[in-house]
Amino acid sequence: MFEFQYLTPGQPVIFKDQYVTKVTECIKTYKHDAKGDIGIIGLPVSKSSISPSLAADAPKTVRNALHAYSTYSGERNHDFKDIHVLDFGDVHTHPTNLIETTERVYISVREMIQTNACKRYIMLGGDHGVSFPSIRAFHEQFGRIGVIQWDAHHDVRNFEDGGRTNGTPFRSLLDGGYLNGEDLIQIGIRDYSNAEEYHNYCIRNGVTIYTMDDIDSMGIVSIIQKETERLAQKVDFIYLSVDMDVVDQAFAPGCPAIGPGGLTSRELLSSISKAVKHPKVKAMDIVEIDPSKDVRDITSRLAAHVIIRFMYT
Amino acid sequence: MFEFQYLTPGQPVIFKDQYVTKVTECIKTYKHDAKGDIGIIGLPVSKSSISPSLAADAPKTVRNALHAYSTYSGERNHDFKDIHVLDFGDVHTHPTNLIETTERVYISVREMIQTNACKRYIMLGGDHGVSFPSIRAFHEQFGRIGVIQWDAHHDVRNFEDGGRTNGTPFRSLLDGGYLNGEDLIQIGIRDYSNAEEYHNYCIRNGVTIYTMDDIDSMGIVSIIQKETERLAQKVDFIYLSVDMDVVDQAFAPGCPAIGPGGLTSRELLSSISKAVKHPKVKAMDIVEIDPSKDVRDITSRLAAHVIIRFMYT
Amino acid sequence: MFEFQYLTPGQPVIFKDQYVTKVTECIKTYKHDAKGDIGIIGLPVSKSSISPSLAADAPKTVRNALHAYSTYSGERNHDFKDIHVLDFGDVHTHPTNLIETTERVYISVREMIQTNACKRYIMLGGDHGVSFPSIRAFHEQFGRIGVIQWDAHHDVRNFEDGGRTNGTPFRSLLDGGYLNGEDLIQIGIRDYSNAEEYHNYCIRNGVTIYTMDDIDSMGIVSIIQKETERLAQKVDFIYLSVDMDVVDQAFAPGCPAIGPGGLTSRELLSSISKAVKHPKVKAMDIVEIDPSKDVRDITSRLAAHVIIRFMYT
Amino acid sequence: MFEFQYLTPGQPVIFKDQYVTKVTECIKTYKHDAKGDIGIIGLPVSKSSISPSLAADAPKTVRNALHAYSTYSGERNHDFKDIHVLDFGDVHTHPTNLIETTERVYISVREMIQTNACKRYIMLGGDHGVSFPSIRAFHEQFGRIGVIQWDAHHDVRNFEDGGRTNGTPFRSLLDGGYLNGEDLIQIGIRDYSNAEEYHNYCIRNGVTIYTMDDIDSMGIVSIIQKETERLAQKVDFIYLSVDMDVVDQAFAPGCPAIGPGGLTSRELLSSISKAVKHPKVKAMDIVEIDPSKDVRDITSRLAAHVIIRFMYT
Amino acid sequence: MFEFQYLTPGQPVIFKDQYVTKVTECIKTYKHDAKGDIGIIGLPVSKSSISPSLAADAPKTVRNALHAYSTYSGERNHDFKDIHVLDFGDVHTHPTNLIETTERVYISVREMIQTNACKRYIMLGGDHGVSFPSIRAFHEQFGRIGVIQWDAHHDVRNFEDGGRTNGTPFRSLLDGGYLNGEDLIQIGIRDYSNAEEYHNYCIRNGVTIYTMDDIDSMGIVSIIQKETERLAQKVDFIYLSVDMDVVDQAFAPGCPAIGPGGLTSRELLSSISKAVKHPKVKAMDIVEIDPSKDVRDITSRLAAHVIIRFMYT
Amino acid sequence: MFEFQYLTPGQPVIFKDQYVTKVTECIKTYKHDAKGDIGIIGLPVSKSSISPSLAADAPKTVRNALHAYSTYSGERNHDFKDIHVLDFGDVHTHPTNLIETTERVYISVREMIQTNACKRYIMLGGDHGVSFPSIRAFHEQFGRIGVIQWDAHHDVRNFEDGGRTNGTPFRSLLDGGYLNGEDLIQIGIRDYSNAEEYHNYCIRNGVTIYTMDDIDSMGIVSIIQKETERLAQKVDFIYLSVDMDVVDQAFAPGCPAIGPGGLTSRELLSSISKAVKHPKVKAMDIVEIDPSKDVRDITSRLAAHVIIRFMYT
Repeated sequence: MFEFQYLTPGQPVIFKDQYVTKVTECIKTYKHDAKGDIGIIGLPVSKSSISPSLAADAPKTVRNALHAYSTYSGERNHDFKDIHVLDFGDVHTHPTNLIETTERVYISVREMIQTNACKRYIMLGGDHGVSFPSIRAFHEQFGRIGVIQWDAHHDVRNFEDGGRTNGTPFRSLLDGGYLNGEDLIQIGIRDYSNAEEYHNYCIRNGVTIYTMDDIDSMGIVSIIQKETERLAQKVDFIYLSVDMDVVDQAFAPGCPAIGPGGLTSRELLSSISKAVKHPKVKAMDIVEIDPSKDVRDITSRLAAHVIIRFMYT
Repeated sequence: MFEFQYLTPGQPVIFKDQYVTKVTECIKTYKHDAKGDIGIIGLPVSKSSISPSLAADAPKTVRNALHAYSTYSGERNHDFKDIHVLDFGDVHTHPTNLIETTERVYISVREMIQTNACKRYIMLGGDHGVSFPSIRAFHEQFGRIGVIQWDAHHDVRNFEDGGRTNGTPFRSLLDGGYLNGEDLIQIGIRDYSNAEEYHNYCIRNGVTIYTMDDIDSMGIVSIIQKETERLAQKVDFIYLSVDMDVVDQAFAPGCPAIGPGGLTSRELLSSISKAVKHPKVKAMDIVEIDPSKDVRDITSRLAAHVIIRFMYT
Repeated sequence: MFEFQYLTPGQPVIFKDQYVTKVTECIKTYKHDAKGDIGIIGLPVSKSSISPSLAADAPKTVRNALHAYSTYSGERNHDFKDIHVLDFGDVHTHPTNLIETTERVYISVREMIQTNACKRYIMLGGDHGVSFPSIRAFHEQFGRIGVIQWDAHHDVRNFEDGGRTNGTPFRSLLDGGYLNGEDLIQIGIRDYSNAEEYHNYCIRNGVTIYTMDDIDSMGIVSIIQKETERLAQKVDFIYLSVDMDVVDQAFAPGCPAIGPGGLTSRELLSSISKAVKHPKVKAMDIVEIDPSKDVRDITSRLAAHVIIRFMYT
Repeated sequence: MFEFQYLTPGQPVIFKDQYVTKVTECIKTYKHDAKGDIGIIGLPVSKSSISPSLAADAPKTVRNALHAYSTYSGERNHDFKDIHVLDFGDVHTHPTNLIETTERVYISVREMIQTNACKRYIMLGGDHGVSFPSIRAFHEQFGRIGVIQWDAHHDVRNFEDGGRTNGTPFRSLLDGGYLNGEDLIQIGIRDYSNAEEYHNYCIRNGVTIYTMDDIDSMGIVSIIQKETERLAQKVDFIYLSVDMDVVDQAFAPGCPAIGPGGLTSRELLSSISKAVKHPKVKAMDIVEIDPSKDVRDITSRLAAHVIIRFMYT
Repeated sequence: MFEFQYLTPGQPVIFKDQYVTKVTECIKTYKHDAKGDIGIIGLPVSKSSISPSLAADAPKTVRNALHAYSTYSGERNHDFKDIHVLDFGDVHTHPTNLIETTERVYISVREMIQTNACKRYIMLGGDHGVSFPSIRAFHEQFGRIGVIQWDAHHDVRNFEDGGRTNGTPFRSLLDGGYLNGEDLIQIGIRDYSNAEEYHNYCIRNGVTIYTMDDIDSMGIVSIIQKETERLAQKVDFIYLSVDMDVVDQAFAPGCPAIGPGGLTSRELLSSISKAVKHPKVKAMDIVEIDPSKDVRDITSRLAAHVIIRFMYT
Repeated sequence: MFEFQYLTPGQPVIFKDQYVTKVTECIKTYKHDAKGDIGIIGLPVSKSSISPSLAADAPKTVRNALHAYSTYSGERNHDFKDIHVLDFGDVHTHPTNLIETTERVYISVREMIQTNACKRYIMLGGDHGVSFPSIRAFHEQFGRIGVIQWDAHHDVRNFEDGGRTNGTPFRSLLDGGYLNGEDLIQIGIRDYSNAEEYHNYCIRNGVTIYTMDDIDSMGIVSIIQKETERLAQKVDFIYLSVDMDVVDQAFAPGCPAIGPGGLTSRELLSSISKAVKHPKVKAMDIVEIDPSKDVRDITSRLAAHVIIRFMYT
């Protein structure tokens, strides 16, 4: 058999330090009967977005960004290279039928769960519309679900003005009975980015809301600690839904609906780290990154760190 | 009469959520005898800038950015959709005669005031040179004026080296007797961005200066609270002059004279919110945004939030 | 009544040369019973695009680009400022139901025609999917239509792989009986950008195809002259469908499906000028400009010149 | 004295090939009584521009671009490294008094000429407004001047609408008696970029106009040859005024007033080469490059080649 | 076994039209004993570049660009989907030892040849330095080689001023005896981009040179035809070396050493098509694309078309 | 002698305010026997970088950025215009021999020191690989050196996987005996950006490590104060090595290895200010700025402020 000295056909050529494990090295393509710690799936959907969005390209850029970082935590002096992640690929969406696309997302997340290959899950959006079929699938598999939503917006718009868009996922979940309002915690809601009707809708449904002022006065880590524990008393499965526009536009310029006055990268990362410490936190989606609007992929890179914090609890 | 089903000639097509009021929906073109709460005027001037600047394009991008945000404050659970803003348009500047342009700014701001249509005013720069004719007009109409200036720079340069530029507005106001030094508060003055002569000029004139170190040690909100109250004992009309380069370059990359070590977006917004709570704060200009240098219009978006904070006291 | 010296509320401030008429000055918002020479309508649709596209933003950038140019032709020493264009606005699309959106485009183009306000028409895309409902509307109003299509691609893909997309408009028209194959002329078809099946489909349907090699050997102007005359013997209404990706990527970088080896800007403009000389050429759409991918809006500017050539025959 | 091995304080570090002479190596700072072949001067003016322009930054980028090319012509197998260029620096403009700035340009060009250091001259704009004081200075020194103007626009606007701007230089020269209309040749005038009044003004004054259609039918090189010879019979000094927007926007994206349908880079370069072959061609300005709008400085690079063609006749 | 409906783990999700074969679908990873028509190898080297260059990233972007195009030629009505390409991957370069890197390129190209898997070869640079080890490998395997070099530069610099760089490959080959000067044809040599010494070196060695003026007067296709036939009488193996900076900067802005006055995309493509028609043309490298300097990857896209023209003779 | 009124050949034209001294005005080219306070040297090296980097261009952009700021500190009401800086220029690197380049850096820094012209030194990278030869030179001249390293990474990689790269400088120094582990303090080490082996290597060698969590809990200024004092008890010469990637990607987007969760600009500047207060802090390098990846040069501007803080103790 022919032996190449400096060629490995089919493999990308990258500098390899023998002592460094890149996060991507722990991610394997899912194969039949494989077992892993965490399942990851891409939901490349953005035609449901109200504002112009190419967030469907984010699963690719976020996966790429994961390659830039390693499995070793210096803070805890631990290398998480033994955590195995199975990549189920991206959902094949329909080019023109958006209802069909939502159904395919639902079916695919459900199929991933039903493989029983993993215990924890990461969903890579896509726009925030994907949280509806995704959380629905988890609800149907695991029963009552608690959700912590990092977001500048409530995302409970009405359906009349455009159907199920990236502005409606939690409306769909609450109205559809897939999620109880009291099991939904919203973190980082920002002034002049929402509507009274939707605020009131949330309140009527028992949703817990933390605004940026709340974060300024209470601290995001203590909020998360308190709410994670409170949720955990009611549910067995906590799902994190991370809309990157909760972050200030300086730290996450690649979101379609950017604005000032949001979280810093350190607030986001420390709050995620706190949340995932609880063993009932078992799934996370990360949405609303449009790579075409980003600067040096810094929004995808921040998302990659969010994912790493989720992976290495 | 012909009825179109999906066309509205003359109107831009935008997604409309029936429960959301965008800030721009509350802004109407000024018409004779109209009455409103706030008057807004564009001052598209940047040929007076020392460094290369296309800040004359900012009134357009800032107005556009206002469309991205809504009238509802979740922090206070109040929808300010009843605040009416009258837009007086942009001043027609002269292409080559800059003294004429300054005069036109002065005349136009004065005319806006003299319509008596509104009680509060927003001036959209333009470079910081516009503050001279603008504040002069307010002084002549309302008498003694107090000014709080957010700025990395003193802006009291000499006139010999280039006439009245964007580096001289407060020199023009102080020397011209339109403003007392003791009625001027400068916030966010940054190291290695000024000159001893101008620092001393300010001190000699009784100007109050807060540097970034002062902000680090005292907190910008408490500084603003203290100074607003102090000013209010002396004057009946407080004017805010917001040079966006007071903000760190990471949060406001679109200013001509950017640098590190400035305010965060949350510091700027919380300080504006504090200032506008005082009923004597009745006018604000916002200057030094060059859209051609910006990234995703984030500087214009931050300015839009400053304006919203001013509108919805 | 209050008179402003340098303010005109509600009007943008732009430099006005008393002797120059900008193209946009001849475009008026359509009002009931208005009459004009040319009707213009925006079709802001791009969710039907196979590849990532924000071409829905093009009607805005192309209209803006028209402002940069004047009504005067030096080549003919004639000022076309008396040609009146009526703007019917943009079609309100549906955020998530793409079939509904296609229907709305069809209805709106039909309504524009039925006002009988104008004799000639310009449709601003959007992706190429809009040509199906647009040409269908013209067919139903005017009978047999001839179409000259500037395009690197045949755009006769199958429907199974994704429904009606921006790759299928001429399939929809031919299969639907809205257009005869013999009445369709394709100009600028490029190598390695199509499929044998679709080439053969065109041939089977009697479509006339001119490739880039044909243009190199025959010259695009003589091709257009010959085909316009030939079409005019069969039909009374000729519709031009201009997919900007017919142009080389150096001249039109803002198309989603760019490539090298296409037309120069001068070839495109001279061929359009030739076509519109024939009085039966009465409608034109211009599609596949994604402003978010463009450089200094040069693709929109080129489109503006195409439109001007159509306007001023 | 201390000898450094790899340091040369005060000199930029660049790769030096012992057999290559870069154009910049032949450009020396003018010193008293120096003699050279060509004088070069920067005219960093753009506040006189009607449209937003930072063309004042072009002298720097064009000088930088000259460094990328060498003194050797392969076409003629000749190395022009013995042509010496003297750099007189850039004119110190006034920040706010534009009339003063125009005067300073005039005085400085005149002073350069009066040093008698060189026989040929290059003026680096700046916007096209600089051609008025520049050509005026040459006229006053050398008498009757012929001008060949590469330009998409006539640049003979009226003065009422904004004074002397970048749209008026040839009006200023013709009306001021510094240039006879019959001695002005305009090359590359483009459709829908001018006004009837200005076309007629040119005709009334005896200006010779070549449009893009003329270039398409006659060829730019033969036009230049014919006109250079014709001018040379009447004048002893021919001045080339090269407005880079004569070039198609694909080849020169960095001009403020870009558009399609203009010259290619090869047409521009071959026409310049033809013109400079005539010994009466002794001066050239190159204007309307705004580096902030450019892509990889390709407009400045093209300008650098124009200059090289002028230098090495 | 678990069946997914809309997931294919390990595969990118892309829109697939059943009738379209993308070029990338015909490229397979080389496996032991595989046979194909064409071998492709990536040479990600750019540290040998004199000017700042990240051309090492080009093999990735060029491979990606191939995905945008199909295997069908409309000009010849033939689908080349049966041409099989074997991808040997990219050479693992050494991070700091550039001589070692050059050796690895040589060894890897030689190994690819020695597999005897294919009859024709494509080398994806990297900077032009890779042509030395690549052509050396072909020479050692196939004997006397003829080379047609598309390039603005001679690339025969001396070695003293910096060793073997991207400016020296043909010096290395000629001096090393791997290539006869009379077997080297240079196409597109540009004025003011070379040195007399290197021109003379080429002449002394019998190299044939065609400048841009030659191309303007003779036409590039006829030059190529003549030279291919002439070479073919002397050698059995012709290697094309395509430095993308032979193309005008408007068409290939992503090269480190860009300039105006070069080939158009159509001239490049038609000349490649002509060359590859000769059966002795069996290898090609394509170099000097720095994706970090490119605009929308248009330089990589043009390179992809060059490659397709080579593949489908 | 000829007197120009508005020209100063050989000098850039910049707006000069008579009362403002720009930092660059205090920087003079080193000349034989000159004396100054601070020596500055450029180390334009980035071919040793593992990831693609053009950091060799940073000495130029950082020097340019220094021009934007002045010598006056308002915080201390002191103008440091009397601090004289001598610029020794940039090291001439070798285009292809990286070991030679490292040697040249070492020799040049040593030569700068041996001129005895200055007492304090600034080294402008370049990638982090330059710290090895630079610190080595200081060690050999001044004996035991203490180093405070701002960095997200340990930079103690092994040599087998690529030789001496930008990932190995502190390995080279520690293994080479040029620096004691106990004399090295690392500040800002970030999670998931390092490897266990390298963490352990540092610990084994006695290196002191402060992670981002340490900074969050202790405050960076108090860490610096404590460690500067502790180091000063052991060494007489403290060298700061500032890898800009210690800063969050929002504040320093121009580093090759960016990521979220790093320092803010204010944390970096305040920590530098604290460190330089100690009189034993006598040298600083600043590395890993790739201008081609930056946004508006904000990373170079931040570096300029770091340098100013070092200059004006």
